[in-house]
Amino acid sequence: MSNTSTTSAGRASQQTELLRRREKLLGKNTPLFYDQPLHLVRGQGVHLYDVNGHEYLDVYNNVANVGHCHPRVVAALSGQASTLNIHTRYLHEAILDYAENLTSTFADPLSTVMFTCTGSEANDLALRVARHATGAMGIICTRETYHGNTSAVDELATLFRAGEAVGAHVKSVPFPDGYRPEGGLQDQELCDAYLRSIDQAIAEFQQEGIGFAGVLICPIFANEAVPNVPAGYLNGVAERVQAHNGLLIFDEVQSGFGRTGQLWGYEYVGVQPDIVTLGKPMGNGHPIAAVVASSELVNAFRSDVMYFNTFGGNPVSCAVAQAVLDVIEDEQLVSNARDVGHYLRSGLQDLQQVHEVMGDVRGPGLFLGVELVSDRQAKQPATQLAAQVINTMKAKRVLISKIGPFDNVLKIRPPIVFSKNNADQLLDTLDEVLTELVKQGGIS
Amino acid sequence: MSNTSTTSAGRASQQTELLRRREKLLGKNTPLFYDQPLHLVRGQGVHLYDVNGHEYLDVYNNVANVGHCHPRVVAALSGQASTLNIHTRYLHEAILDYAENLTSTFADPLSTVMFTCTGSEANDLALRVARHATGAMGIICTRETYHGNTSAVDELATLFRAGEAVGAHVKSVPFPDGYRPEGGLQDQELCDAYLRSIDQAIAEFQQEGIGFAGVLICPIFANEAVPNVPAGYLNGVAERVQAHNGLLIFDEVQSGFGRTGQLWGYEYVGVQPDIVTLGKPMGNGHPIAAVVASSELVNAFRSDVMYFNTFGGNPVSCAVAQAVLDVIEDEQLVSNARDVGHYLRSGLQDLQQVHEVMGDVRGPGLFLGVELVSDRQAKQPATQLAAQVINTMKAKRVLISKIGPFDNVLKIRPPIVFSKNNADQLLDTLDEVLTELVKQGGIS
Repeated sequence: MSNTSTTSAGRASQQTELLRRREKLLGKNTPLFYDQPLHLVRGQGVHLYDVNGHEYLDVYNNVANVGHCHPRVVAALSGQASTLNIHTRYLHEAILDYAENLTSTFADPLSTVMFTCTGSEANDLALRVARHATGAMGIICTRETYHGNTSAVDELATLFRAGEAVGAHVKSVPFPDGYRPEGGLQDQELCDAYLRSIDQAIAEFQQEGIGFAGVLICPIFANEAVPNVPAGYLNGVAERVQAHNGLLIFDEVQSGFGRTGQLWGYEYVGVQPDIVTLGKPMGNGHPIAAVVASSELVNAFRSDVMYFNTFGGNPVSCAVAQAVLDVIEDEQLVSNARDVGHYLRSGLQDLQQVHEVMGDVRGPGLFLGVELVSDRQAKQPATQLAAQVINTMKAKRVLISKIGPFDNVLKIRPPIVFSKNNADQLLDTLDEVLTELVKQGGIS
Repeated sequence: MSNTSTTSAGRASQQTELLRRREKLLGKNTPLFYDQPLHLVRGQGVHLYDVNGHEYLDVYNNVANVGHCHPRVVAALSGQASTLNIHTRYLHEAILDYAENLTSTFADPLSTVMFTCTGSEANDLALRVARHATGAMGIICTRETYHGNTSAVDELATLFRAGEAVGAHVKSVPFPDGYRPEGGLQDQELCDAYLRSIDQAIAEFQQEGIGFAGVLICPIFANEAVPNVPAGYLNGVAERVQAHNGLLIFDEVQSGFGRTGQLWGYEYVGVQPDIVTLGKPMGNGHPIAAVVASSELVNAFRSDVMYFNTFGGNPVSCAVAQAVLDVIEDEQLVSNARDVGHYLRSGLQDLQQVHEVMGDVRGPGLFLGVELVSDRQAKQPATQLAAQVINTMKAKRVLISKIGPFDNVLKIRPPIVFSKNNADQLLDTLDEVLTELVKQGGIS
């Protein structure tokens, strides 16, 4: 690194050079955050540090759930990696200990785990299990969703596909949104209106000879921008799935491991699925993920299909995941997510009194969404403002993102070690940024 | 752990308990090696150690390519995991350094890399890239193959599917086998006979309106039991792929990173593919994998598809993979694989003079196959003997496996730090085991 990098011009040219290399080596359009991308070099707890030594409050990264570079997690990783790292076709006690500890946190009959490396692999495997069990191919998921990047899971996605048709084996249904309720319907009436789409999709699958395998859905609708979905909706979905002998798969890649203020999203919403998929925060950044289901489902699948995942559930991954589970328990992070989440949500609701653009504040635990609108009555999405907000927040050293069908919902999803002090810093900065940007005028 | 575990009966009951827990927690039929499964606790270099302190020579595990728990790899993992572990939507220099070092080992135009976590994800992504580029769905692969476990990649598999039909978008073709040449054909005549299957599959895809996207194949036919495929065959495949505007994808999950005595399998076979997929040994057990292709292919894909892999190519994975690449270079492991592979193959050929059951000795570098037959003329597969051999070898503390359409090919595929002394131990043990088992009679 030359001395020029310490000057502002040097830093800018270094950044340009990195971007040039990145485009050449990883390809054009490889996803990147922010108008001025962030060059990170270090992480600790809820903080990230850039190449210039600036400290950022991380209010975005849910993967590092128990905090960046948690020493217990790193120690477990290093210790096991220097002892033994091998696939699971030999016996290893720690793998079983972790499998036991993990499954013991689930309600019966969710007692058996199939390890994979990524949430995408877990969702792909869940589809295979559901299709095997039902002998049918049809999967229902929601609009504005994303469940991963394999060919089969990508068929479910609508979020990043810009109107591309979903596969023949997939039907996407709209979901009820308490903030923008169609026809102004409320509660059970709103649910019923949307549950008719489920009925219709099941009927169509049956008419088409594809058959109905199940519903794959995130219990907190994370990628749909954590909308306020009326309580009866998921219950209605579960009833329909059961009535038509399908399987209810909850993608808990985002809602799991304490995020909602409950350990599992299904506890938060009070509806039990047949299959749960886990991912992102399971190893705090180490690639481990899983499918949890009944032993009946797993045994039936495994009796016909030789499923093996070379890296899945190896001793290193399980040691890391065990450390994550231990930290969540010992540092009482589930109740922290609940308490600080509640505190932060209240703070955001207070800000909502001051800032007209904050149309809606919502979300479970430490996964909050703030929908920005240019007009509270018309609920006109303030898409451009949302982009300005996240870039200006970043300039003030607070990292958040945006999401939603209109890309106008601020996405607030920090590591769950987030404290009330951290929440105050976020609230103060957001207040400042919204004041500045709205004063500059031109909300759109 | 109770004191009973130090007695033989105690060890047996401990093993029974582990198997019971494993079946309950991971499901019945979760794959497991050996009649009496091995309970491992430690690994170092080419050795593995069981719970009773016994040392095993590892002549099977290709994932720990540079040796189990290599200190430089562990140090890189620990160092980066305690500094920063985050996804790639921020800038990070070490990711680009690794991408540059990795792609610089490939011939033009293979200059761009898309990171994933597993070989399955890499092959799944390669299918997406090929199907996107060609606008066609049809993929040709070989019989007796396996390329991974996602829904789309599993469609290609025949190896673990017991006659199950492949998907509509996949056609499996037979491959030429120098040991069992159909009709006694040799060399180019044998190639031509089998290349007609490729022509036919392409024509069928076109007639069916599915179109031809490409061929996905392991250049050394690893899962097909490393048959002696005549030199002209892969050239003929490449010509046909090009003539029909498809893409040639080499699955180098097993043949890559020095295994063949060349860094890449495509160099070993002398045929250049359009896309290469990497996996298993890339991180010596850490979950990192990749697709390498031309910038044109990657840019065209990325311009239409938002592909993102949360853990893929993160700073920790890249630090580990960089250490693996450095060790391969600094310890001259490619030439070691070539030299020790040659030495081992010669030793096996010497044993073949003594043991009638060793019908064929073959394979590149440190991936050797020994086909066991009960009759050299008739080439009757000695399937049961192969199972006895690997279990008896294990009892004598040498780990190998078996593979092939008849499950009668000994699979010899050690970490490539394997030495000539290690080879001698393998050869002596195999000699002893074959002598014992054949003396006991009943080759079948």
